[in-house]
Amino acid sequence: MASRLDPRTGLPVVAMVGGGQLARMTHQAAVALGQSLRVLSIGPEESAALVAADVRLGDHRDLDALLALAEGATVVTFDHEHVPTDHLHALEAAGHRVAPGPDALVHAQDKLVLRRALSEAGEPQPVWAEVASVADVEQFGAAHGWPVVLKTPRGGYDGKGVFVVDDADAAAELVERHGTLLAEERVPMVRELAAVVARSPFGQVAVWPVVETVQRDGVCHEVLAPAPGLDDDLATAAQELAVRVADRVGVVGVLAVELFQTADAVLVNELAMRPHNSGHWTIEGARTSQFEQHLRAVLDYPLGATAMTAPVVVMANVLGGRAAEEGWAGPGLDERVHHLMAHWPDVKLHWYGKGQRPGRKLGHVTALGDDLDEVRARAVAAARYLADGEIDPAFAFDTEH
Amino acid sequence: MASRLDPRTGLPVVAMVGGGQLARMTHQAAVALGQSLRVLSIGPEESAALVAADVRLGDHRDLDALLALAEGATVVTFDHEHVPTDHLHALEAAGHRVAPGPDALVHAQDKLVLRRALSEAGEPQPVWAEVASVADVEQFGAAHGWPVVLKTPRGGYDGKGVFVVDDADAAAELVERHGTLLAEERVPMVRELAAVVARSPFGQVAVWPVVETVQRDGVCHEVLAPAPGLDDDLATAAQELAVRVADRVGVVGVLAVELFQTADAVLVNELAMRPHNSGHWTIEGARTSQFEQHLRAVLDYPLGATAMTAPVVVMANVLGGRAAEEGWAGPGLDERVHHLMAHWPDVKLHWYGKGQRPGRKLGHVTALGDDLDEVRARAVAAARYLADGEIDPAFAFDTEH
Repeated sequence: MASRLDPRTGLPVVAMVGGGQLARMTHQAAVALGQSLRVLSIGPEESAALVAADVRLGDHRDLDALLALAEGATVVTFDHEHVPTDHLHALEAAGHRVAPGPDALVHAQDKLVLRRALSEAGEPQPVWAEVASVADVEQFGAAHGWPVVLKTPRGGYDGKGVFVVDDADAAAELVERHGTLLAEERVPMVRELAAVVARSPFGQVAVWPVVETVQRDGVCHEVLAPAPGLDDDLATAAQELAVRVADRVGVVGVLAVELFQTADAVLVNELAMRPHNSGHWTIEGARTSQFEQHLRAVLDYPLGATAMTAPVVVMANVLGGRAAEEGWAGPGLDERVHHLMAHWPDVKLHWYGKGQRPGRKLGHVTALGDDLDEVRARAVAAARYLADGEIDPAFAFDTEH
Repeated sequence: MASRLDPRTGLPVVAMVGGGQLARMTHQAAVALGQSLRVLSIGPEESAALVAADVRLGDHRDLDALLALAEGATVVTFDHEHVPTDHLHALEAAGHRVAPGPDALVHAQDKLVLRRALSEAGEPQPVWAEVASVADVEQFGAAHGWPVVLKTPRGGYDGKGVFVVDDADAAAELVERHGTLLAEERVPMVRELAAVVARSPFGQVAVWPVVETVQRDGVCHEVLAPAPGLDDDLATAAQELAVRVADRVGVVGVLAVELFQTADAVLVNELAMRPHNSGHWTIEGARTSQFEQHLRAVLDYPLGATAMTAPVVVMANVLGGRAAEEGWAGPGLDERVHHLMAHWPDVKLHWYGKGQRPGRKLGHVTALGDDLDEVRARAVAAARYLADGEIDPAFAFDTEH
């Protein structure tokens, strides 16, 4: 208990690097715990900067900004993975607590580091190799089949930095541009899953049910909780895998393990060490949300119960659509929110306050119930209406949903 | 839709007068709706001022502060009832929207105004009279029996401003000090209930289940949702009563109707026109919380679903206890929160960040489940531990709860 506390409240101060929607929703959770999230935001109109009381403007690549953020804070944590590892070591050297620590976080920052660690641990993952030349890619393709998936080791997200190449020629430009790449077999996957857990410094781990993440073009569109029709043994295997990875890597905070489900197994795709899109459903759908749990974990508080609050929970992202295009002449955002509420009084809205641009994650909606098809249709229609200003005909005259 | 919107987000700006815990929890709800609550706080360390991004320091009795708060806001609403009626009219005259409006709010500010309005409407309430002399009190007592309950028409809360007098002599000092008082019969009540509703300018009304409020010394200690064993007809009568009152008075926002339950009826005790302690359970316990609903109502958004998320929900207030006394040598707040989480991983904490003083409402906890006795014991023990640093022996070795 010898941690730094806010003298005004007697409670901890969590500092989060990054002012996006993850920080925004973490602040909401912090408020319930008697805290106020301290946020390092790149600008005053970032999602979290619009709502948090303690906002420091600065860049996550600026060590001085990080040191100023950490001053007096109980622990420093992250809304993204883009802080340079050296800076994290420097924060620790200056006596600050960092969670997850740099040696854990690098597994979410660098896909090659992750692949090596999982190979050493014998954990299931796609066949992979480090490639630095066209010849390397050629050799990998010959051995494991074409097409080959090439990934930049660092900096990719939401499908960016991922390339599927059909032959060595197609790889040439990528190798030239990026130097070292991660090559992976294209996994014959059934669907994508996520196993989200939280781990405290004490070593307590809490596990939510495994979910299906519905992706299009590398971007998550929906999360179905629990993953429909997932075999119990495979669900348990996925959860145990996530717990083992969290322990081995030494994660502190929330860990989302993104998984490929194949005919009879799950393979690790990548890790996120922070609240993650695949866990947004927990705000209403689980007794403890991933945002509260992340705070508990980084503070070494005991973790909260993860039981679901309804049999089926579906989260649908609102990605900037037609209504975010320039020249959009349909109903404005406030009017769309109005109609959303009229049509779906039991759908829960989470709007991030960000500038609207096509393709950008602007918010999400969550629906809960008993029947997957009904719940999913409701969530998807609501999200689509916010994005595109179009009411699904199935809902147009139905305000009872 | 011609309302004032935040140019940064395209969404409304709700301004709340008062920086207490109600504003704090309303801000949490605003964040999900893409908004950021603007708060007028009397000081920088008020509950909401610690967590909101847009805090104006000022006094709710200062018209200039109110006008500055309202500038550019979509609507002005309240965390308490202490704004002078003249100031509310002045805000409206300056072109600002005020919700609830002054003519509605006065029914929550002035108990005599409320009593007159309910008498005109023929709604059930205790027998009452306006008294301004010892002779008036004597006459009331002679007609309706002793003891007589005397209340200051304005300014009372949490049992303050309420006096029970056994005879005319005991009334003398009160009449002299306060001038005009409200006299009421002492109702032979079974228990206290609350019917909480929300009403929009459009006239839509949403109703949560009627709850029992467990009071001690005029202060709410627990809220049991739904009110255990309440006859269906009486529950419906209480809800219908609340809806009628909301309509008649023209409430916009949340209205809590505090009720006395007698052998065969419910009588109106008083009104609150804002999120209210008797509705805190809705944060986790209903599909739409009273805080989100208040925002929807004052913005004339369609109201959200009020269905319960569990069969039984119990909220217990944390009132400053032994641990808030000077010289307390037991575990500090952060340590108590730690132990709370270890003992009750599924109890939800809401801590308001206020300075700890004996008797002050410092936070609340909410427990959900199927069995009233179990759920209630869990909530009460958790709240008591936070307040007094004492673990109920029934829970001391049981971390499975």
